[in-house]
Amino acid sequence: MDLVLDKFHEECGVFGIFGHHEASTIAQLGLFALQHRGQEACGIVSSDGDDLHQFRSQGLVADALSEDVLKRLIGSSAIGHTRYSTAGKNTIKEVQPFSVTCQHGQIAVCHNGNLPYAAEKRRELEQAGAIFSSTSDTETLLHGIARTPASDVYEAIEKVLKETEGAFSLLFLTPKSLIAIRDPRGFRPLVLGKLHGAWCVASETCAFDLIDAEYIREIEAGEMLIIDENGLHSSKPFIEKPKSVCIFEHVYFSRPDSTIFGKSVNESRHKMGKQLAIEQPCDADLVVPVPDSGVAAAIGYANQSGLNYRQAIIRNHYVGRTFIEPSQSIRSFGVRLKLNPIKDLINGRRVVLVDDSIVRGTTSKKIVEMVRDAGAKEVHMRVSCPPTISPCYYGVDTPCKDDLIAARFSSPPAKGALAAFNSPPGLRRGDAASAAGWSADGVVLSAPAETNIQAICEYIGADSLGYLSLEGMLEATGLDPATACTSCWTGKYPTLIPNGKAP
Amino acid sequence: MDLVLDKFHEECGVFGIFGHHEASTIAQLGLFALQHRGQEACGIVSSDGDDLHQFRSQGLVADALSEDVLKRLIGSSAIGHTRYSTAGKNTIKEVQPFSVTCQHGQIAVCHNGNLPYAAEKRRELEQAGAIFSSTSDTETLLHGIARTPASDVYEAIEKVLKETEGAFSLLFLTPKSLIAIRDPRGFRPLVLGKLHGAWCVASETCAFDLIDAEYIREIEAGEMLIIDENGLHSSKPFIEKPKSVCIFEHVYFSRPDSTIFGKSVNESRHKMGKQLAIEQPCDADLVVPVPDSGVAAAIGYANQSGLNYRQAIIRNHYVGRTFIEPSQSIRSFGVRLKLNPIKDLINGRRVVLVDDSIVRGTTSKKIVEMVRDAGAKEVHMRVSCPPTISPCYYGVDTPCKDDLIAARFSSPPAKGALAAFNSPPGLRRGDAASAAGWSADGVVLSAPAETNIQAICEYIGADSLGYLSLEGMLEATGLDPATACTSCWTGKYPTLIPNGKAP
Amino acid sequence: MDLVLDKFHEECGVFGIFGHHEASTIAQLGLFALQHRGQEACGIVSSDGDDLHQFRSQGLVADALSEDVLKRLIGSSAIGHTRYSTAGKNTIKEVQPFSVTCQHGQIAVCHNGNLPYAAEKRRELEQAGAIFSSTSDTETLLHGIARTPASDVYEAIEKVLKETEGAFSLLFLTPKSLIAIRDPRGFRPLVLGKLHGAWCVASETCAFDLIDAEYIREIEAGEMLIIDENGLHSSKPFIEKPKSVCIFEHVYFSRPDSTIFGKSVNESRHKMGKQLAIEQPCDADLVVPVPDSGVAAAIGYANQSGLNYRQAIIRNHYVGRTFIEPSQSIRSFGVRLKLNPIKDLINGRRVVLVDDSIVRGTTSKKIVEMVRDAGAKEVHMRVSCPPTISPCYYGVDTPCKDDLIAARFSSPPAKGALAAFNSPPGLRRGDAASAAGWSADGVVLSAPAETNIQAICEYIGADSLGYLSLEGMLEATGLDPATACTSCWTGKYPTLIPNGKAP
Amino acid sequence: MDLVLDKFHEECGVFGIFGHHEASTIAQLGLFALQHRGQEACGIVSSDGDDLHQFRSQGLVADALSEDVLKRLIGSSAIGHTRYSTAGKNTIKEVQPFSVTCQHGQIAVCHNGNLPYAAEKRRELEQAGAIFSSTSDTETLLHGIARTPASDVYEAIEKVLKETEGAFSLLFLTPKSLIAIRDPRGFRPLVLGKLHGAWCVASETCAFDLIDAEYIREIEAGEMLIIDENGLHSSKPFIEKPKSVCIFEHVYFSRPDSTIFGKSVNESRHKMGKQLAIEQPCDADLVVPVPDSGVAAAIGYANQSGLNYRQAIIRNHYVGRTFIEPSQSIRSFGVRLKLNPIKDLINGRRVVLVDDSIVRGTTSKKIVEMVRDAGAKEVHMRVSCPPTISPCYYGVDTPCKDDLIAARFSSPPAKGALAAFNSPPGLRRGDAASAAGWSADGVVLSAPAETNIQAICEYIGADSLGYLSLEGMLEATGLDPATACTSCWTGKYPTLIPNGKAP
Repeated sequence: MDLVLDKFHEECGVFGIFGHHEASTIAQLGLFALQHRGQEACGIVSSDGDDLHQFRSQGLVADALSEDVLKRLIGSSAIGHTRYSTAGKNTIKEVQPFSVTCQHGQIAVCHNGNLPYAAEKRRELEQAGAIFSSTSDTETLLHGIARTPASDVYEAIEKVLKETEGAFSLLFLTPKSLIAIRDPRGFRPLVLGKLHGAWCVASETCAFDLIDAEYIREIEAGEMLIIDENGLHSSKPFIEKPKSVCIFEHVYFSRPDSTIFGKSVNESRHKMGKQLAIEQPCDADLVVPVPDSGVAAAIGYANQSGLNYRQAIIRNHYVGRTFIEPSQSIRSFGVRLKLNPIKDLINGRRVVLVDDSIVRGTTSKKIVEMVRDAGAKEVHMRVSCPPTISPCYYGVDTPCKDDLIAARFSSPPAKGALAAFNSPPGLRRGDAASAAGWSADGVVLSAPAETNIQAICEYIGADSLGYLSLEGMLEATGLDPATACTSCWTGKYPTLIPNGKAP
Repeated sequence: MDLVLDKFHEECGVFGIFGHHEASTIAQLGLFALQHRGQEACGIVSSDGDDLHQFRSQGLVADALSEDVLKRLIGSSAIGHTRYSTAGKNTIKEVQPFSVTCQHGQIAVCHNGNLPYAAEKRRELEQAGAIFSSTSDTETLLHGIARTPASDVYEAIEKVLKETEGAFSLLFLTPKSLIAIRDPRGFRPLVLGKLHGAWCVASETCAFDLIDAEYIREIEAGEMLIIDENGLHSSKPFIEKPKSVCIFEHVYFSRPDSTIFGKSVNESRHKMGKQLAIEQPCDADLVVPVPDSGVAAAIGYANQSGLNYRQAIIRNHYVGRTFIEPSQSIRSFGVRLKLNPIKDLINGRRVVLVDDSIVRGTTSKKIVEMVRDAGAKEVHMRVSCPPTISPCYYGVDTPCKDDLIAARFSSPPAKGALAAFNSPPGLRRGDAASAAGWSADGVVLSAPAETNIQAICEYIGADSLGYLSLEGMLEATGLDPATACTSCWTGKYPTLIPNGKAP
Repeated sequence: MDLVLDKFHEECGVFGIFGHHEASTIAQLGLFALQHRGQEACGIVSSDGDDLHQFRSQGLVADALSEDVLKRLIGSSAIGHTRYSTAGKNTIKEVQPFSVTCQHGQIAVCHNGNLPYAAEKRRELEQAGAIFSSTSDTETLLHGIARTPASDVYEAIEKVLKETEGAFSLLFLTPKSLIAIRDPRGFRPLVLGKLHGAWCVASETCAFDLIDAEYIREIEAGEMLIIDENGLHSSKPFIEKPKSVCIFEHVYFSRPDSTIFGKSVNESRHKMGKQLAIEQPCDADLVVPVPDSGVAAAIGYANQSGLNYRQAIIRNHYVGRTFIEPSQSIRSFGVRLKLNPIKDLINGRRVVLVDDSIVRGTTSKKIVEMVRDAGAKEVHMRVSCPPTISPCYYGVDTPCKDDLIAARFSSPPAKGALAAFNSPPGLRRGDAASAAGWSADGVVLSAPAETNIQAICEYIGADSLGYLSLEGMLEATGLDPATACTSCWTGKYPTLIPNGKAP
Repeated sequence: MDLVLDKFHEECGVFGIFGHHEASTIAQLGLFALQHRGQEACGIVSSDGDDLHQFRSQGLVADALSEDVLKRLIGSSAIGHTRYSTAGKNTIKEVQPFSVTCQHGQIAVCHNGNLPYAAEKRRELEQAGAIFSSTSDTETLLHGIARTPASDVYEAIEKVLKETEGAFSLLFLTPKSLIAIRDPRGFRPLVLGKLHGAWCVASETCAFDLIDAEYIREIEAGEMLIIDENGLHSSKPFIEKPKSVCIFEHVYFSRPDSTIFGKSVNESRHKMGKQLAIEQPCDADLVVPVPDSGVAAAIGYANQSGLNYRQAIIRNHYVGRTFIEPSQSIRSFGVRLKLNPIKDLINGRRVVLVDDSIVRGTTSKKIVEMVRDAGAKEVHMRVSCPPTISPCYYGVDTPCKDDLIAARFSSPPAKGALAAFNSPPGLRRGDAASAAGWSADGVVLSAPAETNIQAICEYIGADSLGYLSLEGMLEATGLDPATACTSCWTGKYPTLIPNGKAP
C-alpha cells in the first residue's frame, strides 16, 4: 500500500556550496531542508580542488547521507540533489548528481527542471555515437558539453545551453568551480546565499535558513553564475525570453517558509485562501485544512470568511514505504495511513475542507468519504488554485491528461478550436506564438475547455466544490501575470512542445 | 546532533488484538498509529494458539516491522509495543514485548506505565534467586508471576498485581488468550475496540481509527480483561483506589484525534488555549503555535483573544537520528533542524508563541531567539499548562527535578514546610496521605514553592511569559479534578514514593 | 538449497581473556580461529571492571563482530562464543554469552557441552518460579547460581556445578573475574594460554596460535580456574569421575593444527589413516580425500598403503547461506556447491575415497555418484572411524538414532540383550554402571548391534566400504582408551541419560 | 589488517547463458564457481527479449546476488562478472557488466582481460566528445561501438575489436543475443558449454561442472560467437595473430578442477611439482604445500622426490574484510589470519615449502618465519614457476616492476642491452618484433637480467630457494611454448606496450 498522495510532484531540489571547509556537511543540511522536493533518492558530489567525489543512494537525506558518507566526500565545494522519481526507472543510475570525465575534465551536474526536447536530442546524440547510462534528460546536456569544442568548460556549457529549450535550474561542479544557471524563462527557482564567506545556491531559501546563511538574491532567469576562488562571475549569455515562472511553486511545491521568485510563499497561500473565500464563499461551521499543504490557505479562508478555523484532520508524519493492507480491506486505507479526522470536532458540523489542488481526484474522494464517516453534516471542498487540466513539461511529475480529473470532466470546445489556436499547420518553434498571441514561442496544446465542476463535485462526493480563479490565484502571489507559467491550468505552454503531444 | 526536543516523553504505546487472522499485520498498523508514544524501538509477539512468536527491534514501526517480519509472526492474536528509551540502557534486551516461559507456560507482556517500587522489588527477587535480563521494571512482574503458585496464569497475574503499586496499562499474551489490565488509579489510558468480530486494545483510540475498528469503551481503572475464544471476561480484582489519570496525556502526549479518559484531546487543548487567553492575555499582532503540539491551544487562544492566528513556524517532519553540526556552529542549530520561522510574517510583528509546556527551558530559549532573529518586535510565550516542577513516577520520562526550569527558578518555601506536609518522619506507605490530606496514600515530595515566572521569562529571553493555571487546565479537560494526577505540576503524588526521593 | 554437509556438528567454541587492554579485539580473533566450531551466531561480553557489555548476533565472527561493535565492548576482560544452532529455535535469544544480573551481581556465561538433565532441571526451576528466556540448557545453570545462597559468586557456581551432570566447558565473566571450568569427565576440551601477561582460555589451541599466545596447559577435567587481578586460582571442587573425553574432536571437530587433550589432532588423523589402510586395504589407483576433513587421514592411508595420493576433489570455500536450485534440477546439487571432482584425474581410475565419518549417508551417496560421473572405474569408501550408531548427549548435534545410517542398517541383537546390559529395571543413576561394568555411572542405551556394512555400501553406491575399528581409532589418538567417550560408536554412555531415551 | 595475500590477481571471471528460463539463477551459480577470479564485486545483466536488467554490487556472489535480486533479473539470457578491484577506484561505477543505450540499441558488456592502449584511446575519445563514467578500459569499447556506423551491433563490435590491441575475453548481451569473443592471441580463457539446450560461456570449465552443463570446447583465439534464437554463429573476423595464452592461469589463477586451453590445470601443477623436484631437489623430511595453491605441485614434488608429503600448514577459509591488529602487534599477523602451521609436525624437521609463485616476497618471508617459529630445523622454499620479473598488461593485477622481488634482486645487464633488443629507437608497433625476433609485434621492456636467487633467499629467510625453469614449467603444461605468453617471467611482451613503459 503506497503512501503517496495524489499530488503533482516537484521533481527535485538542488543545493550547492563553494568555499566552505565542511562543504559536504553543509550540503547534506541544505538537502535535508529541501527534502520535500524529492524523497526517493539523493546524492552529493564534492570537490577537493583536484578530484570530484560522488555518492548517490536511494532513500532520504538523513538516512542515505550518513556521517560515514560525508567523511568520504572531502573538499570545500559540493553540489547535491534530492529526487522524486517517477515509476519504472527507479534505479541508482538515474540518481543525480551525475559525475563524468570528458575532454573538459571532470564535471558533475544536478538539475531541477525538464528539457522537453531531450528525447529528440538523445536520438541525435545516439546517432552521433553517444552512449547513455540513464534515461535522464540531464545526461543529454553532458553529452552536448563533452562534444562541444571550447576553450574551457564554461564556454562549452554556455554553447550547449544556448541551444537548449526547457526548464533548467542547473548546478555544475568542476574540480575548481561551481556553476549555477537558470534558464531564460526562469521556470524553476534558484537562489543565492552567503555563509561565512562561502557562496551557496539552493532551490529554496529555506535551505539557507537551516544553515543560517544569508539570502542574497534570486539567481536571475537567464543568468549563469561561475563561482571559483576569484569569487562570483555573473553573465547573461542566453537569448532573453519572456519570464515564465512556475506558479505551482507558490501553490504547493515550495515550503511556506521559503521566498520564491522574491515573494513569500506563505503570504501567497494565505492570500489565495482569502481570495478563495471571496470567490467561493460557503455557509458552514468549520474551516478545516487538508494538512499540511492546505493550512495557510485555510487560515486565509477562515480569516476572510469569519468562519471558525480548526485543524480537524490530523496527519501522521511517520513514514513508511509500504504497508500491507489487510485482506478485509479498510475504508479509505491509503489516506488513513496519513490522515485522521477528529470525530468530536467534525460530528454534526458543516465542514469546509481547503486543499491546495485536486489532481486525479482519488485522494479527495477518500478524504471527503472519511470526513463524512466522521459525522460531518455537510462537506464543502474549496481548492486554492484553478482546475488542473494539462500536464507539465517543465520539471513537474504530472499524470497524463486523461488522468487529470478536471480534464476528464470538461465540455470539449467545438472542433477546430485547437487548430485555430495553433495554426498554421507545420508548426515550428516560434510560429505558434504569434498565431496565438501569447509569449514569444508559446503554444496551446488543447483549446481551453470548460471544466464541469459539478461533475467533479459529484465524483469526489462533496456537497459543493469551488476552485480559485486563475486571476485570483495570480493576484495572490503578487507576481506579474505576464511572467507566470500557468500551463497546467490553461494548457497554454510558453514553449513549443515536441510533436505538440503530451508527455 | 540530536533532534529530540525538550519535552516530557511518554514512555510507550501498546496495542493488542485477539481473533483476527491477520493479527500481526493489524498490530503493526495499530503501532504505526501509536508511533508518537515511542520512536526508539518496537516489537510484536503473536500467538498461533500453541506457541508465541517474538520480534523486537530498534527503530520505527514502518522500518522495523517489515513484511518479512510480519510473515513470521503467525497466528490470530498479537500484542505490540512502541518504546521511547531513556539514555544509557538502549539495548535490544530492554525492548518489549518480553516473552518468557515459566510454570504457567509461555507468556508475553508489554507495559505502559511505571512501577515506582520495582527497584526495591528487584532486590528482593534477586535475593530470592531471580535472574534479570533487562533493567526494566516490567521484568519484575514476570518474576512475580512465575513465582506465584496458582491454578492458572490469570490467578497468578491477579495475585501479583494486587501487590503492585504504580502505573500499569498492561497487555499479556498467552498461547490461548490476551489479557488487558489497567491499574486501580488508571494513570495511563487503555481502550477497547472491536474489528470485524475481533477484539482489540490500544493506548489511544487513534489506533482504532486507522484500522477502522469501532471504539467500544475505556478499559476501566482497576479492570482486568481476559479475552479468549470464549469472548470477553471482565473483573475488578484489585482494591479500589482513587482514580488518578495523567493529565499530561491531554496536554501533550496523546494525539489530538484520540479520545482519552472519555474526552477528546483536541477539545481539551482548544479549551486550554481559550482559558490561557483569558488568564494570560497579551497585546500582540499574531498568535503562533510551536508546532505541532501547540497548534490546538494556539487556535483556542486566537479564537478567544480575537488575535490573528498564523502558522508562522514551519516544522520539518523528515527525521534523522543525528546530524553533524558544522564546526562554525549554527545559531539554534538543534531547533532549526525541526523548526523554521517565516520571516515575512514575523518581521516587525508582536508575536504570541503558544507551546504546550516548558521543561528544561533550553528549547524555548532557542525558539524565542530564532523568532527574534526572524525580526519579531516582541515575543510573548504562553504555555497551556502550569509550570512543571516535579518528576513523574508513573511512566513518563522526565528530567530530574534540578533540570526542570520551573523547579530551579522558584522561591523555596520556608524550612520545615516539607516536613509539615509529610510528617511524621519514618514515613510509611499510607501515612503521608492522611497527614497531607490528599488521596489515600499520596505524598508530597516537595512543598509547593512559588515559581519565579519572571526569572524563567528572562532565561528564555521572552518579553512576557504566562502559564495556564492548574484549575484552568483541569477545567479545560472536562475531567473531575479529584480523579486527576497532577504530580508534575504540584509535587503531590497519589502514591508513596520509595524513600521519598526523586528517581 | 542448504550448504551444510551431512556431519556431526560441534555445538560451539569458547574463548576468554583476562587482563588485556584490548580484550574484545583479542576475543574476536580467538573466536575467528574457532569459527569452525560454530558458524551460525556469535557474541562477546566484556567487562570494564564495573559493568559487563554484551553483543550477540547471527552470522560469522568477521561480519558480526565489526570494528564498531568491538569499540563498544570496552574493558580488559572478555568472553566469547561461536555457535552452531540446531534447527527451529534459531533466534537471537539463544545466542551466547548470556549476561544477567542476580543476587551475586552481574554474570555472563558461555558454554561448550550439553547438560542431559537440563529439561528435567528446567521443569523443577519453573515450578520453583523461574522464568526462561531461551530454550538453552545453559540458562538452567544461571538460575541455579542465582538461587544458591553463597558468600560469593564463586561459591554459588561451585555448588551448582557439583550437582550438575553432563558435559561443560564453561566460561563465566563477572565484572572483576573470569572463571573457566571443565566438567569432571572432561568431555569437551578447554585450554589455558598466556599472552603478554594476560591469561586466555579457549576451546582449542589454534586460537592461541592466531594471537601468538603461549599454550600453557589443558584446563583439567574437574578443574575450576578463577582468574582475577590477583592471578590464577585453581581448585578441583567436584567429585572426581572417570575421564571421558570426546574422541570425535580428534576425528572431525577440532582443527588439525590444534592440540586436544594433549595430543596433536593432525597426528591422530594421520595415524587413523594409516591404521585404516592396514585394517581396510584396497587395490586401487588413487587415494583421494573428501576435503577438507579427510585430508590428513587420506595422506596417512596413502603413506601406509603406498597408493598414489591425489587431491582430486576440489572444495569451493566461498560460502553462501542459500542458493536457489534450478527447477530442472542438477545432479548432486547440494554437494556440488561445495565439492567438484577433477575429471582428468579420476576418469578411468580406481579411487579410494577417505572420509572421516558417515552420518546419514546422504552426502556420501552424492559424492560417490559424483565421482562415478567423473569417470571413476571403481569407487571405494574408507572411513577413519567406526560406524556411528548412537546420538550424543554431550554437546554434539547428532541426528536422532533412526537417521544414523549405521543404526538403520544393522542386525538388531536378540531381544533382552539390552535388558541384560542395563538391569536391574527401575534404573537409577549409578546403578547401571556396576551392572554393566563400565565407568562409574554409565549406561547402555542400545545393545551393540552388528552394523550391516554391506547394506550401507550398497546404499551409498560404493564398490566397497571399510570403517576403522574402535580399537584402531583409539590407538591412533594415543589416548588411554579408559578415558575416552565412545558413546556415538558404541551406544555405551558414561553417564545416565534421562529416561534412558535418546534425545 | 588486510587479508589479501601477496599474489598476482586475476582481474575477473565472466559467465553467460542464452536460452534458459532461469538465466539469472544459472548465471549466479556460474559466477559462484568463478568466485576465485574476483571477490570484490559482481553483477549480472539479464535480457527478457526486449529490455536489459542490471544489478551490480560490491561483495561476494552469494551475498550480493540474493534471491530477491535474481527475481528482478528476468529473462532467458544473462551475462555476469566477478571482479577483483585494484585499489583507489573501488566504486560501484567500475563494477561490470556495464549496460548502456546507443544507436545500436541496448548493450551490456563484461570483460576479462586488459587493453594496454585504453588510456590513449580514451584521450582520443574524450577529444571527440565522449563522456566517461568509469575509469575502466572496457568503457572505451562501448564508446567505440556507439560511434561506429554499422548495419547492426555485431558489425559495430567487429569493427571496433579489429582495431583493438590487447587481451579480451568479452561477453556482450543485447536484448536478442549473447556475443562471446576472444582476442586473436587468446590471452585469457573462454569456454563454451551446453545445458539442457541452452548455450553457456564461462572463463573456466569449473562453472559448467557446478551447473552440470556439458563442456563443448574452447572459444578459439580470434573467434566471435553470436548466440541468438537461431543458434550459434561462429566467425573469425580478426587478423590472425600468434597465440599467446596466459600460463599463469595454469600456475595459479584457475581452479585445479578446470580445463584451461584444453589442458587440465591440476595435471599441469602436478607435473610442475615433479619437474621442480628434478630441477631443484632437496634433502629434507617433509614436503609441505603453502595452501591452497601449492597443494598440487607439492604432491607432485613429493611423488617425484620420494619425500614425505604432509599438509602441515592449515588455512582458515573463513573470510573477513578487515581485522584490527592489536597494538601489541602479533608476529606475522596478516599471514596468521589465513595460515597456521602444525607445530607437532614441523618441530625439529627439515621442511620443503612448495608455493606457486613469489611476488613481492613479503608473504613468503612471513611464512618462512612462521614455520621456523613452529620449530622447523630447516626451511627450503621451492617455487613452481620461474622468478616473476615483469608486470602484466593483459588482465592481471601485478605490482609495478620495482615491487617484484625478483626484479629488485637481479644483476642488471650491461647498459645498452635493452637498446639492443628494442632498437631502433623511436619504437613503433611492429618494429620491435622483427628487431627482437619474437612474435609478430612483440617487444622487450627490460632485457633479461639474471635474478639473484641467493639474495631473495636471504630476504625471505629460507635455507635454500629454488625456482622452476621456464622450460620446465612450459613442458609441464603440455602446451606448445610458441603459443604461450611468458611476459611476467621474461619481460618479453607479445604486443607493443604504450610508450614502452610499465603500467
